[in-house]
This record gives sequence, C-alpha cells and structure tokens, in this order.
Amino acid sequence: MPPSVSVFGAAGFTGALTARLLHRHPGFELRALTARSDQGRRLDDIYPHHRVPFELEELDLDRHGDVDAAVVAYPHGAAAPLVSKLRERGVRVVDLSADFRLRDPAVYAQWYREHQAPGLIDGAVYGLPERYREQIRGAELIANPGCYPTATLLALAPLARAGVIEDVIVDAKSGVSGAGRSPSEKTHFVTADENVNAYGVPAHRHIPEIEQELRSLGAPVRVTFVPHLVPLDQGELVSCYVTLSGADGFEGLDALYADAYADEPFVELSDRPPGVRDVRETNICRISVHPDERTGRVIVFAAIDNLWKGAASQAVQNLNLMFGLSEHGGIGPVKHGVREVVS
Amino acid sequence: MPPSVSVFGAAGFTGALTARLLHRHPGFELRALTARSDQGRRLDDIYPHHRVPFELEELDLDRHGDVDAAVVAYPHGAAAPLVSKLRERGVRVVDLSADFRLRDPAVYAQWYREHQAPGLIDGAVYGLPERYREQIRGAELIANPGCYPTATLLALAPLARAGVIEDVIVDAKSGVSGAGRSPSEKTHFVTADENVNAYGVPAHRHIPEIEQELRSLGAPVRVTFVPHLVPLDQGELVSCYVTLSGADGFEGLDALYADAYADEPFVELSDRPPGVRDVRETNICRISVHPDERTGRVIVFAAIDNLWKGAASQAVQNLNLMFGLSEHGGIGPVKHGVREVVS
Amino acid sequence: MPPSVSVFGAAGFTGALTARLLHRHPGFELRALTARSDQGRRLDDIYPHHRVPFELEELDLDRHGDVDAAVVAYPHGAAAPLVSKLRERGVRVVDLSADFRLRDPAVYAQWYREHQAPGLIDGAVYGLPERYREQIRGAELIANPGCYPTATLLALAPLARAGVIEDVIVDAKSGVSGAGRSPSEKTHFVTADENVNAYGVPAHRHIPEIEQELRSLGAPVRVTFVPHLVPLDQGELVSCYVTLSGADGFEGLDALYADAYADEPFVELSDRPPGVRDVRETNICRISVHPDERTGRVIVFAAIDNLWKGAASQAVQNLNLMFGLSEHGGIGPVKHGVREVVS
Amino acid sequence: MPPSVSVFGAAGFTGALTARLLHRHPGFELRALTARSDQGRRLDDIYPHHRVPFELEELDLDRHGDVDAAVVAYPHGAAAPLVSKLRERGVRVVDLSADFRLRDPAVYAQWYREHQAPGLIDGAVYGLPERYREQIRGAELIANPGCYPTATLLALAPLARAGVIEDVIVDAKSGVSGAGRSPSEKTHFVTADENVNAYGVPAHRHIPEIEQELRSLGAPVRVTFVPHLVPLDQGELVSCYVTLSGADGFEGLDALYADAYADEPFVELSDRPPGVRDVRETNICRISVHPDERTGRVIVFAAIDNLWKGAASQAVQNLNLMFGLSEHGGIGPVKHGVREVVS
Repeated sequence: MPPSVSVFGAAGFTGALTARLLHRHPGFELRALTARSDQGRRLDDIYPHHRVPFELEELDLDRHGDVDAAVVAYPHGAAAPLVSKLRERGVRVVDLSADFRLRDPAVYAQWYREHQAPGLIDGAVYGLPERYREQIRGAELIANPGCYPTATLLALAPLARAGVIEDVIVDAKSGVSGAGRSPSEKTHFVTADENVNAYGVPAHRHIPEIEQELRSLGAPVRVTFVPHLVPLDQGELVSCYVTLSGADGFEGLDALYADAYADEPFVELSDRPPGVRDVRETNICRISVHPDERTGRVIVFAAIDNLWKGAASQAVQNLNLMFGLSEHGGIGPVKHGVREVVS
Repeated sequence: MPPSVSVFGAAGFTGALTARLLHRHPGFELRALTARSDQGRRLDDIYPHHRVPFELEELDLDRHGDVDAAVVAYPHGAAAPLVSKLRERGVRVVDLSADFRLRDPAVYAQWYREHQAPGLIDGAVYGLPERYREQIRGAELIANPGCYPTATLLALAPLARAGVIEDVIVDAKSGVSGAGRSPSEKTHFVTADENVNAYGVPAHRHIPEIEQELRSLGAPVRVTFVPHLVPLDQGELVSCYVTLSGADGFEGLDALYADAYADEPFVELSDRPPGVRDVRETNICRISVHPDERTGRVIVFAAIDNLWKGAASQAVQNLNLMFGLSEHGGIGPVKHGVREVVS
Repeated sequence: MPPSVSVFGAAGFTGALTARLLHRHPGFELRALTARSDQGRRLDDIYPHHRVPFELEELDLDRHGDVDAAVVAYPHGAAAPLVSKLRERGVRVVDLSADFRLRDPAVYAQWYREHQAPGLIDGAVYGLPERYREQIRGAELIANPGCYPTATLLALAPLARAGVIEDVIVDAKSGVSGAGRSPSEKTHFVTADENVNAYGVPAHRHIPEIEQELRSLGAPVRVTFVPHLVPLDQGELVSCYVTLSGADGFEGLDALYADAYADEPFVELSDRPPGVRDVRETNICRISVHPDERTGRVIVFAAIDNLWKGAASQAVQNLNLMFGLSEHGGIGPVKHGVREVVS
Repeated sequence: MPPSVSVFGAAGFTGALTARLLHRHPGFELRALTARSDQGRRLDDIYPHHRVPFELEELDLDRHGDVDAAVVAYPHGAAAPLVSKLRERGVRVVDLSADFRLRDPAVYAQWYREHQAPGLIDGAVYGLPERYREQIRGAELIANPGCYPTATLLALAPLARAGVIEDVIVDAKSGVSGAGRSPSEKTHFVTADENVNAYGVPAHRHIPEIEQELRSLGAPVRVTFVPHLVPLDQGELVSCYVTLSGADGFEGLDALYADAYADEPFVELSDRPPGVRDVRETNICRISVHPDERTGRVIVFAAIDNLWKGAASQAVQNLNLMFGLSEHGGIGPVKHGVREVVS
C-alpha cells in the first residue's frame, strides 16, 4: 500500500497544486485536504483545472494527523506550530513555509518573528535535492526552499562551489501567482496587467536564505536581490550578475556547469537565455551562462515555474526521495538524456 | 470663471478617471474629491498615471456641496440618496450609477432594490448624447448610461429607428476594469489571465436599460445579453446578432448607418470589425455592420473603452453639453471629418 | 512492439504538440518528424517546453512512409496529396487539415479549392470520438475536426439529437495560437495584446463543417458563426444561443446533457459558465447549459484548449481508438467519476 | 504660419506615433508621411487608434524635402543617407535611429556598420533635453536617444555628475513594441505571452551610447547592460545597481535627485519603485532611488514609455525646443508643480 499523505493549507496556490500532483501520483495515497479558509468547498470548485474532487476540511489533528506524510502550506510563522504537532505524531513533513529554512533562529526572528519551534530547526533538511539529496532521503522534516532561492541557488551553485564568486547581484522577475491567492490591490488584474515594477526593495525576505546556502557552498557574499512583478501567471526568471574573484577569467565555465548538472534530471542547460515559457508546468530549472568579456563578469540566467519547482513539484520531488520512490514520480518530464534515477 | 465641479466617489476606476479628465479640462474647475475608502490618500498615490494631486476627502456636504456641478460615482443604490441631497442644493449632477437610468421604479426594484429617490426619476435625462443631446443641454440630473448599454444602443439605434429589428442577441466582451477596483477572486490576475468566460448568465442587470431604450427607439424586443470577461484592462466589444423583421434584406444598410452618424463626433464607422485597441483611452465608439446573407441576419459590432465612453469621458461629454461648452472639451480626439460642434 | 507513428508537418503549433504527446506516449513509438520549414532544426530548439529531441526532416516518403500511422499537420489543400500517398502505402492517417472533413467535394471546393483526392472522402471518418467512436476504431483515415466545430458540436449535440434546435448563433472566442505559428500583423503581440475583435465575418470556413455535422445529428439549421480573437495563448470558448423549436421549454435540459455525457471521459458538465483556464492543456471539453426564460432561448457554453482537444490531443485520442489502446493514453487527465475505458 | 514637418518612415511604431503627435500639435503643420512599406495605405488603416488620415507615400525628396523639419524613423544604417540629403536642403532633422548618437565613427562601425555620413556627426546634438537642452535649441540635426539610454541616463545622471559611480549594472525590461512592427518569431503573441527572457546577451548595441554619455557626465565606467522582453505592449523599466566610489555612503541621496530634477517638467521622483503603467502614453520618466545599506549599493529604477519618452514624444520635445515652442507642446501632461517652461 502506498504511503498516505495529506495537504494542510490546500486552498492556496501551492497547496492546491501539491494536492493535484499527489492526487495523480501513483506512489502516494492522497488522504485529505485541510484549509483555513473556504472550508466545505471542494478543491475542484475553486480550481477546476486541478481536478481534485476533495473537500477542504477544517483541521482536526486526530483525524488528519494519522498519515505517513504531510505537506504543510501555511503562511510563514503559522506553519511551525502545526509542523511541531505533526512531528510529535511521527508524521514526516515537507513544510512549504520559510519556518525551517534558516539555520539560525536569531536570523529568522530578524526577518520574520520569534520562532515557534526552534527545537526542530536542527533536524530539518533544506529541501533542494540538487544540493542535499542524500540528507533528504533520510529526513523527517524538510524545509522546502523558497522559489527565488531555488532558482538563484541552482544558477550560482557551480560558481559558489568553485570558490570564484566575489560579488553577486540578482535581479528576479516573477509572475503574479508568486504573490499568493489573496486578492489585493497588488494582485488585481488592472494593477498587474501591462505593468512591471520592483518590490521588496531594498531587502526581501529571501535574502538570508540565499546567503546562508551560498555560504555553505563556499561563497560567503552579501547578495543584492531585487524581485520584480511581471504580467504573467506562472514563471520566474533570475538574472544573476557575478563578479569573479579569480583572475583566470572564463576558461572552463561551460564545463563547470555541464559537470555540475550532467546527472541532474531536472536541471537543463541552454545556450540561449531561457524563457519562463520553457519550463512552465514542469519541475525543470533551465539555466544559461554567459561571460561578459567587456566587464569581466559572468551572467547566469535561471528559469523555473515558481509554483512547480519553486514550491509544489519540488515538495513532491522531496517526498519521492524521502519515501524511496523514483525521484520524478508524479512530476512530469525530466530533461532529455538523463538516466532516470530510481532508488 | 469656469464652473466648479467635484467628484463624489473618486477612489474607484470611473470616479478617478473622471477626476483626471476634469482636472485637465480648461472649461471646468475641479474643486474636490470625496471617497468612501482611502480617505486621506492622494489620488496620485493610488493612480500615479492620472496625475491628479488631490486628497480623497470624507464627504462633508456643506463643504463639498457648494459647487456648480457634481459627478457621482457611487455604487448602485448608494448613489440616489447623495444625488438627492445634491439636487436639493441646486447642484447639477451626472450620476454614473444605474439609479436614474430606468424610468420605471418597479423595474428598478426588480433588478436592484427599492428606489431611494423615486421623485427624481422623471426629471432625469438618460445621458447618451447621440440619442438625447438636446435634453441633456438643459438637464439638471443626468443618468450616465452603463458601458454595455452605451455600446449596444449605438450599435443598434439606426436599425431600431428604422423599425426593422425583430430579434437581437448581444454577446459582449469586457476588460477586467469593468469589474471595478475592489479586489476579489474574479479580478485576481491569476483568475483572469489566460482566461475568458461568461458571467451574469442568463440575466445581467444591464438588460432592462437596453430594452427600455430600444423600445423608445421603436424596437420593443426582448434582448438576450451575455457579457464575458476577457483578459485585458480597458475595452469593451459588443457583437450584436440581429434578425430583421422586414423582407427587404440589406439594401441601404451602409447608408442607414452613414446617415445616422455622419455628424456625430464620437461615432466612427469602419469596414472591418473594430478592435477595442482602436478606441482605447478615447470617447469614440467604433462600429461595423455586416449582412450575413446565408442566414438573413445583420451582425453589428461596436467597440468602446468601458472606462471612457462607457463611463467617465461620456460623463464629461454630458457636462460639456450641460454647461454649453464644446462637446469634445477635455475628452480628446474626435473622429476625422466631423465639424467640431461648438455651442 | 508499439505501433510506429510519424508526424508530417511538425513545425507548426498543432504538429509540434502532437509530436510531444506521442513522444511521451507509452503506446506508440514516435519515429520521425518532417516539416516544410525549419528543416534541420531540432523541435526542442523551436519549442523547448515540448522537450522532443527530434530533428525536423525534409519529407522523404520512402523513408518516412514506412510507419504504421501518420499524423498529417499540413495546411488545408496541401494535406490531401500527402494523405493520398500515405494511404497508398497502407499507412493509417489522422489528418488535422480540413481536407477530409466535408462529405461533399462541391462544398469543399466552394470554401477551399478543388479537392485533390476526392476518392478518399467516402472512406474518411470524422474524428469526433463522442460522435463516431465505433467508426473511428476501424478507420484507416480520420479527418480530425476543426477546433471550433469540436467545441460547437459537443455543446449542441444533445439538443440536436433531441430535435429541438430551430436556430442557433455561435459567438466564439479563441486564443492567438489558433491563428497559427506564421508571424503576421494579426499575430504580432502588439496587435493582439489588450485587444479583442471579430474576424472571418460573415462567413468563416468552419461553418459548413458545423452545419454538416449538426444536420447528421438531426438539426438541419443554418448557423451564424462568428469567431473572435482574444488576448491569450491557448483556449477557446463557444457561446451558443439556441432558439428551441418545441414549446415544451426547458424541462429536462440538465438531464439531457447529463445522460448524453455521463460516460464520456473527456466531456465535463459544470453549473457555472466554464472558463478556458479550466481546460488548459487537457483533452477535456467543459460545458454549461442555461435556460434564458425571459427570451425562451437556451445558452450553452463549451470551453476547450484549441491546440489540445481542438487538434493535437484529439488526434491522439483518435489514434488510441484506431489502435485499440486505452482512449486516454498519453493525453492526460479525464474528468472525475468516469470509468476509464480500456479496450 | 506654423513650421511644416514630415515624417519619413511612418509605417513603423515610432514613426507612426510621431505622426500622431505632430498631427494634433497646434505648433506644427504635418505635411506628409513617407514609408518604405505599405505605400498607398492610409495610416489610420494600419493604426486606427492614431487617427491620422494621411496616406503613406513613396519617398520623393523633391516633394517631401520641401519642409522646415523632418523626423526620420528609418532603421539604423538606412537613416544616415536620407538625413544627409535632407540636411543638404536645409531641413532641420530629428533622427530616431542610432546613426548620429555615437561621437566616434569607429565605435559606430564596430557595433553597426561603416558610417554613411561621418561628416554630419560633429554637428549632431544628442537629443536628451534634460542633458543638452541649450544645444538642442540651436541644433540643425538631433540624434534622438535610444529608449534604454534615455531611461538609464536619466536614472544615473545625478550620480554620474556627482562623480560617485564606480560600477553599474543595468537590468532592463521592455514591452514588445520595443522589438518593432516587423512580425517575427520573437514578436509572435504566442512567443511573448506568459514569457520573460533576456536577449542581446552579453552585448547590446545600446551599451556604447550609454557609456559615451555617462563618460561625458563624469562617470567613465564599463556598463553591464542586459535587456529583457516582458509580456506587455508599451513600457520600459531599468533597474540600475550602482556601486559607489566614495565612502560617504548615502547622505544626501534624495537631495541630489530632488535638486537635479526639480525644474524638469518630464522627470518625476517617487518614493516607491515606479511601474511602467505609471508613465504609459506620457513623455514622463519616473524615478526612485534606494540605498541598500547591507551591500553599500544604490539601486535606481526609472520607468518610461519606450515609444513615447523613449522615441516619439522625445522627438517632439526636441522639435519644440528647436523651434522655440513650449517644450511640452503636443506631448501631454507634465508632472505637477513644475513651472511650464515657455521660450
């Protein structure tokens, strides 16, 4: 019998998509969906295109906590208490919030609030499979990465590991689904349509997460990171401007990336700058690397679907690893030429 | 000294645009803006592109009622009481709501609610200048038409006057600004983007307004009217499918429309089906007429900007007429070849 | 060994999508792609998101004709000669063009040109599985329906079969991919963005196809059909305004549709007007039916993805039937509650 | 009698818009429009919303060269020979191409081709009024700036003049109209919709223009400049990441910009990051400046309408200056609080 899984907080964009992916996943049994709003509505009433005929239920831990795994799609800060209770019951958890991404509760407190479950931080694994695949396999609690960190870290990891990043500026562009389902002036069609603008300037909450992971890869830099809203639904592009520390220049740049990602089923290299259309509704991150000889910089682009690889399909990828399933089960195409990794 | 005018309810899309048009209008002095939300914010903070450096104030009739004219942009039902008070002070009013469009308070009650100022209905003039220009000149209270009725009536008036409409179906498409500024699931970018769907089926509130005016033109028909939401900001297209009552066919169809609109500064005829881009940010209605010989029907398309000719610029056109100014003052281009009508 | 299949004309939108669906289809072996333009380019260079690592080759019938099945995605008129040659070799063909949809070559000649392979018309089956499932199973040549006829016929079939359609007007809205891949003034982003307009007025080429099939269902009517271009990528909505012939009114309308489509895996009924987002990237047609008691009409909406159910995934659905495979093989989700039909 | 002006190359986006602005301009007489394509079509047939009832004529210098002023909207390289002939006739010219923007013909040759009229370069004035207003007044030949340089230079000029720019990276986002009217795979709706991607990497042609003008302002830096295409029609945002050379930090940053632009009628400062909607269809550049204390950088955003301030309305602004007219004649709103500058 396949492991059972419930989604907590399934009314939002990422929770709902996770529910869809799990509902069609041959390797899991989707058990229940809970939500903090829209209780009693069916998910396929709110999101007909997901075609998940489940009712959104009010949280009842006794009933809903009796599963093998949980995906928690609660807002930052609200997730930690629920995760804590699920862990007490022995449920393996993938948490989509930021609550367990930062190793240092003081840093978390600075960008969010006092941490509600600091005792769980040490045991949490940062759920970027391309970085922590082995740790994820055995993990009980996964902190699923933010969408911007996912794209940025995949873009920069080979350079960070090579120890050549002196400085980096990341200019990110995200579709409006990244702002969440809650209606607001910002997400109103008439505000976002025919528009593009920066937000979260100068200090977006994803910065400490990016810097923490770059540091762990060998690049202890301060990152300038500026996200922009662009008039599209799903998709995210990061444009990374890297000043190299070495004098060697660009020798071996292509080989560096080719080696890093040769066996990665969901990281694709491209000669041309990727577009977010290229990865829409996939778990794939598409990357291109360009030396700028005039300025001595390297420019790296990475495109993902913010709801997929940036959240829901990466959560399922993590679940696949945790439960020893094929890494690409239930999350669609892998890039070509990759040996399918089956545990 | 130019007549003074205030806009009541200037935080919404149509009120704010009216404020912009009047602010730059050489023939009026914009005095004040009131709003029921966002009080204390400046209009150019909410809508930078309108560039109206006025604060949104809480309504104070003693202060704000001391003007020559008022544009009321309140929701249906909420407008009538305010209009009533403004009229008591002798202020000439253009009301953007539906409150004074229907001649019969019983019909109003059926589609909206009990009418709050039935005594004012008889004196109100339906503010479609192409139909009631002379009455508008002397009017004290204008019921500014709905966006859908504006386009539909301009599309059908020549046929209605000719007495040849037996039956008509109107399939309308509107940009999202037509749904108003209030954020909701419907107006969320992620709902409207890459989507198109009907709403208000089978009976939209604009139907009695359309039928009343068609009847007055000589076409006592029941109209099937279905609006659709399309993923664009401003713009509205009505596609009218007319069954003719006479057997004469299509002789003289072009001449009928050419005669009807030859001297109209804001009605443009086109050989090709008009697009809403053609009239964006103008007071112009662009129309094309097509006989369908296979089925014996006539197809008429009319495109307007729902916020301009469908609301704000038509309100200013009415104000221009009421105060004896040039009809196109402050509302931009007229079609070519029209003698500018100056009183 | 699974049957082999090649796609002829794979550079266009529908051919390329068919190639993608077949490339991932467990029941077919995609053998080759030919194209009349872009020869030598790889399909995943033109369409990265399809991830089909095949080169577009120049047509060489000796090489490419040695397959069990062919999908032909040539322009109208150009398809017939190629289909003819493929049939001579015994290849089973699904033709995406209009060349074999019309039973009467004289009608074809009137709307297109002199037919190039009239001898094949009689043997062709119109590939709408919800109408001709049994005939498709044994067919050697399938005329894959047009996108507009697919949506329109699924919307109207229950009423047509019931013999109650007296008259019908179809107002259709299509995304820009329906205009094909060839760049033109019409498909330029700046033309289509923030726009909506009718085209092909008053007589679009899909009309005879719609009328032929309505007639065969028992509704010999002349259809007014007007397509509109809306600013979105993929998706198509038809709004059908039906005048009923009987006096019985609307009794049993819901039951009529529920019965008609209870067992159809790809036809979904909805209480609310469907949006094209609801069916994006699926083979599903989503329908809602609304009596308009004021006018005595019935309004039916049907939404499809024009590239999927309107072309490519319907072609694969037909191939599945032709080769005795599961009808939904390789084409994604079916609606809920349907028993999966496996041969 | 107002000065006469013709537009050469009026079929493209920027030429056509220039024609519209001049056609409605009270201070000029629009004499004729020429075009290299679409000859014989009327401009209001191609662009109904511009409402310019002029025919596009084949170039006939004897006829069309008899004007006081010319706007040339030819492609780079094709403009210089025509400009040369117009200057021989004494016509004052605003050239929208890049042909006279670069002071050094060797640099021009490196990025474009051998220069066709090098003798005219010295006499040309770079038409950025906020930088060269006085020289423009007396100029006979204006090199109208590129859209990206316009926004970038207005964003950076105060810092450049202050001598504090050590390094700068510019990440630019442009609507699709920036790619021109010519239909192509890049400008196809289905390519650009729901997409965002970089192009012209690593070296876009606007770089030497930006560097030349920054140098002349006191900032001899090498610029990393990367443009991106975003799915909207008109609008351009540049995000500038500036490393400061001084150690003083951010003291006086706001005052620096406030002083620089206090009297500029078309440069607006904002506390929040500007959106391109804020400046749509205006000649206004909207700028915000943000210190990033974590990294010691300054981030500057500037939004313009690429077709207006980035091309056509800036050309008219230049014509206004050249002919001693009010600088804002015919080009719409100025920002608030600015004394209108009338010569």
